[in-house]
Amino acid sequence: MQSRQTIDESREKDKQAIRETVARWLEASKQGDSNTLLSLLADDVIFITPEREPFGKEAFAGGGDEMKNMKMEAHIDIKEIEVAGDWAWMRSFLKVSFTPAGGSATKHSGHILTIFQRQSDDRWVIKRDANFVKAEP
Amino acid sequence: MQSRQTIDESREKDKQAIRETVARWLEASKQGDSNTLLSLLADDVIFITPEREPFGKEAFAGGGDEMKNMKMEAHIDIKEIEVAGDWAWMRSFLKVSFTPAGGSATKHSGHILTIFQRQSDDRWVIKRDANFVKAEP
Repeated sequence: MQSRQTIDESREKDKQAIRETVARWLEASKQGDSNTLLSLLADDVIFITPEREPFGKEAFAGGGDEMKNMKMEAHIDIKEIEVAGDWAWMRSFLKVSFTPAGGSATKHSGHILTIFQRQSDDRWVIKRDANFVKAEP
Repeated sequence: MQSRQTIDESREKDKQAIRETVARWLEASKQGDSNTLLSLLADDVIFITPEREPFGKEAFAGGGDEMKNMKMEAHIDIKEIEVAGDWAWMRSFLKVSFTPAGGSATKHSGHILTIFQRQSDDRWVIKRDANFVKAEP
């Protein structure tokens, strides 16, 4: 039987681990480091977005080429994280700007609701991502 | 210490309770029964949708008037539900048609990612709703 304090501490540790996963995600996005990005996704991840049918890891991996020569800046505002056992959910607001070589920046932003799952090796990965990020008008 | 079987059974019971919450939600939507609808929302619920800023219970309650004389038909396809302690998440696809008195039906559909929270009286309520339902082209 865990004490209430132990549970709270372990939950805080989990939230911190999720924040670090998110930081690694953004850093890998900036670097165009697709191996790291893919390692942060569950094998059966599903992205849900407004403009297309939900898609998984393979489609995500195939979509990176147009980003190769882009400079990316990103800032995420994590609004809340809740952890329950091996599951967690997070609500956030993401701002991203993309700048092609010799071109001008386009800004995207939007809200995201993300489900994380703890893996057997204790890593947290993205399981579902309801993503409203779109080009700013 | 609960046995694995007891945990599985209790999780199935929770999933069933969530399915019933969803069924009550759709039925109350059809009936225009806003008291029941509001009782199925956490007080601090947040709806996230593509076209406007996230909104809560008060804005939801205020948005029902235009529905008063609509006939509504709805079908939900629950793709998956995961339960962890007092939290659960569900991915679904919703089809809705609205028919104004003497008018013709408009069809809406889309994916939804919903977070539910168990209340102290054991009811499950909607806590966050990332909702991509929109008018079909």
